[in-house]
Amino acid sequence: MGRWVLKTLPLFEPIREELQVVEETLHLAAHGEHERLGEILNYLLDSGGKRIRPALVILASKFHDHDAARVLPLAAAVEMLHTATLVHDDLVDGSLLRRGSPTLNVDLGAGAIILVGDYLFAWAADLAAATESVPVVDIFAKTLMTICRGEITHAFDRDGWRRTKEDYYHSTYSKTASLFAASAQSGALLSGAPDATVQALREYGCKLGMAFQIVDDILDFVGDEDVVGKPIGGDLRQGTVTLPLLLFLEEHPQTDLLRAIFEQQDDREEKTRALAHMVRSSPAIAAAREEAQRFTIESKQAIEDLSRNPYRQVMLDLADFLLERRR
Amino acid sequence: MGRWVLKTLPLFEPIREELQVVEETLHLAAHGEHERLGEILNYLLDSGGKRIRPALVILASKFHDHDAARVLPLAAAVEMLHTATLVHDDLVDGSLLRRGSPTLNVDLGAGAIILVGDYLFAWAADLAAATESVPVVDIFAKTLMTICRGEITHAFDRDGWRRTKEDYYHSTYSKTASLFAASAQSGALLSGAPDATVQALREYGCKLGMAFQIVDDILDFVGDEDVVGKPIGGDLRQGTVTLPLLLFLEEHPQTDLLRAIFEQQDDREEKTRALAHMVRSSPAIAAAREEAQRFTIESKQAIEDLSRNPYRQVMLDLADFLLERRR
Repeated sequence: MGRWVLKTLPLFEPIREELQVVEETLHLAAHGEHERLGEILNYLLDSGGKRIRPALVILASKFHDHDAARVLPLAAAVEMLHTATLVHDDLVDGSLLRRGSPTLNVDLGAGAIILVGDYLFAWAADLAAATESVPVVDIFAKTLMTICRGEITHAFDRDGWRRTKEDYYHSTYSKTASLFAASAQSGALLSGAPDATVQALREYGCKLGMAFQIVDDILDFVGDEDVVGKPIGGDLRQGTVTLPLLLFLEEHPQTDLLRAIFEQQDDREEKTRALAHMVRSSPAIAAAREEAQRFTIESKQAIEDLSRNPYRQVMLDLADFLLERRR
Repeated sequence: MGRWVLKTLPLFEPIREELQVVEETLHLAAHGEHERLGEILNYLLDSGGKRIRPALVILASKFHDHDAARVLPLAAAVEMLHTATLVHDDLVDGSLLRRGSPTLNVDLGAGAIILVGDYLFAWAADLAAATESVPVVDIFAKTLMTICRGEITHAFDRDGWRRTKEDYYHSTYSKTASLFAASAQSGALLSGAPDATVQALREYGCKLGMAFQIVDDILDFVGDEDVVGKPIGGDLRQGTVTLPLLLFLEEHPQTDLLRAIFEQQDDREEKTRALAHMVRSSPAIAAAREEAQRFTIESKQAIEDLSRNPYRQVMLDLADFLLERRR
């Protein structure tokens, strides 16, 4: 144990040991596999994020008696599922950079990437089954359906420039908040918490996920490329209209730049940059941040009545941290 | 109910009503979805096969008290999983024809196909969870891992022309027999059958799947293109070395055609055709058929001691039918 470096957040210190076990579980997936597959799995898992979703599972299990033997496989399962969706997303949107690491597209063929993603899905399902909880497996499967349905709606959407705020919130739930919500809900369920606690924790996860994604979408406009690890205006370039742009368009309904970008007119790249810069220096950024703040406050309110243990404090701090982060 | 035409085998008559319910369940997946997604799902499910895997689930559940409310979702789940793997396979190997229907590659982008496949996986997992049986969900997840691992090993294998018979059997198990085995095993488990019965039915499914795939591989060389619905020698063209070719090479170790084909030398298509025709008119075909027959006999032997109900007879007839089929 302890061979894999955990690159998580300092505020997760109270659950560090458990996250380390999750880390080992994730990397066990790579162990004993076909050599090249093992390398790829380790690479994917290692270039991964801050393990926020596994942390949500663990934190949410701390409000009642819990059985770590069932909680930790679930924590690994949600991260594995998340990684699988990222692998296929990168392929679908053709993005070459994510989290600052070269993605698999660069040196593997598309066929191999599809299969590696499928393998991660299968492994995630196997870990979810290790919870021995049918309701948790059910939540897990339904969340994957929600995520896929959101991606598909986006992929089939040929009028992306007509996107409304309602569409945006819907897609943000599917893409990000649904898994945050499911992580917290399942962790609570496995601990045997009463319904009200399970619902409160689910609500916390859901609102946290909404805030998280909005901040992500803001950083896509205002972030420092070197810090964020991907090019500015990338969402727009890939045809995804996010909240800052929608708020900008509310104030500037006359602009036809967006439609021009979507209709693949000449100078698409130039127009994309121009629009991204207009958004970046507009009040839409502050307005979007207010929305993120609203969700952050709601996430904290959701767990107001839970017992005041150190884990609840971590959850409150996490909400503030995710709102304030710069990458 | 009854809106979807069931194109199954006449010998499944004793379980026709149950297969019809499975058919409706499968198509329910498409109902209420994003319009274009619904069309695609219906198309995929409707251009589907003979529902052999769902039939195995149902038949295997007939040797003990069974609860149809749990058996039928599982039957739908295995077909959905099978369909999902076909969707991604078509994308991975770039094959344009499968089962005689134009595949999705033709009019959907690769990105959309990946997502549709993922969605089918998610739906399959949700149906598996509806069995409310943790052991069944576990078998389901592990089988998907086996299938993916097999595909990945194949995709990463750059020395395909060195393939041995052992490699072939291993891959045939991963690709086909594992899901046949899991279908029969899970059906038996859900019926509450004793261990010995569960194992016998799993063994039946496994051997049946081996025979099924070998016959498939023989038909790839000897079938009538119009009947089989795909071009002759297709496996070889895609770089897959199957049993008839392996048996041919045992008798003709001096031929260097195979290596030439794999090393992408000139006249690849001409050489592929030439080798396919040599195999087709060689005794290797009869030798491969003997292997398929051996597995068929073993599959029937596996269920020899089970109670002599009409469903056992269907299973025996199915084994003979799959061996003798011409497509």
